[in-house]
Amino acid sequence: MALGKDYAAQQCSIARALEVVGERWTLLLVRDAFYGVRRYNDFLVHLGLPRAVLAARLQALVEAGVLDKRRYQDAPPREEYVLTDRGLALWPVVRSLGLWGREEVPGSPVLRHFHHAACGTELGSYGECPTCRIPVPPAEVEMRPGAGLDPAPADPVSRALLRPRRLLVPLEADRV
Amino acid sequence: MALGKDYAAQQCSIARALEVVGERWTLLLVRDAFYGVRRYNDFLVHLGLPRAVLAARLQALVEAGVLDKRRYQDAPPREEYVLTDRGLALWPVVRSLGLWGREEVPGSPVLRHFHHAACGTELGSYGECPTCRIPVPPAEVEMRPGAGLDPAPADPVSRALLRPRRLLVPLEADRV
Repeated sequence: MALGKDYAAQQCSIARALEVVGERWTLLLVRDAFYGVRRYNDFLVHLGLPRAVLAARLQALVEAGVLDKRRYQDAPPREEYVLTDRGLALWPVVRSLGLWGREEVPGSPVLRHFHHAACGTELGSYGECPTCRIPVPPAEVEMRPGAGLDPAPADPVSRALLRPRRLLVPLEADRV
Repeated sequence: MALGKDYAAQQCSIARALEVVGERWTLLLVRDAFYGVRRYNDFLVHLGLPRAVLAARLQALVEAGVLDKRRYQDAPPREEYVLTDRGLALWPVVRSLGLWGREEVPGSPVLRHFHHAACGTELGSYGECPTCRIPVPPAEVEMRPGAGLDPAPADPVSRALLRPRRLLVPLEADRV
């Protein structure tokens, strides 16, 4: 069914949010940006989606001010995509969806843990540190592999994401 | 582009969540269920979506264990749709998306406020109470109209939702 993209008749902030991040693949692309993925080819390899879809989603997120497109190399020209402040504000959406998927969708194994880097405590259900009793911004979150994660994935991005790492640290930092 | 519904190659709890609630209209339907909408015709009037889409989404949410379908009248037979515990666990997702839409999508007016009924504090980004420092279950949330809400909407469901009300209280309670 062709249903369009907007919800023009819905006077609702959730509808406004879904008009930006509700299309298929978009939130997984935002997730990858939190994990430190910045480059077109890394998104492509990790998401395994059609190139035309990836290009359209990246472009839409840049236009919506969720991602910033930055030149990182001039010859040949190459750009990377980095979360803006508006994009970083999506962390509670990404976190709450992931927690719901893990806790409530039958058969979902524990794939990743998210901890407050400063003290090591696993985040609570609203992204807070239960020990320090503060909301933890994504830059202070450490991601650790869970027992259910495939220990030998085929693609290099998934392999890089097997190691404990801070959110937002560029994937390239691991490759140097 | 026909992209299918699942993300079979993605080893990710967010992907599992989106396979259940990521289709177009689904989260707005879940939102309505939090607001107290339970009946097919009320969803239809409030969402203004095609009947075939509504029927498919309700059926999928029942099959996923997010909504429970209950007979409330025998002659003629009528069913209502009520959030299960698994559905209620989606509240942080609905809250975080709505807050992001309100705060981060340019031009979004403040349409509704959500408060911890016990203390009156407006909820934080995951639905927690910043004063009491606890996650607030949806049954303890009071919804209040914001300054940007149309004061004279065309449909009766939107009119019923203009008044301050507890989440989950059936819309029918206002009509008796």
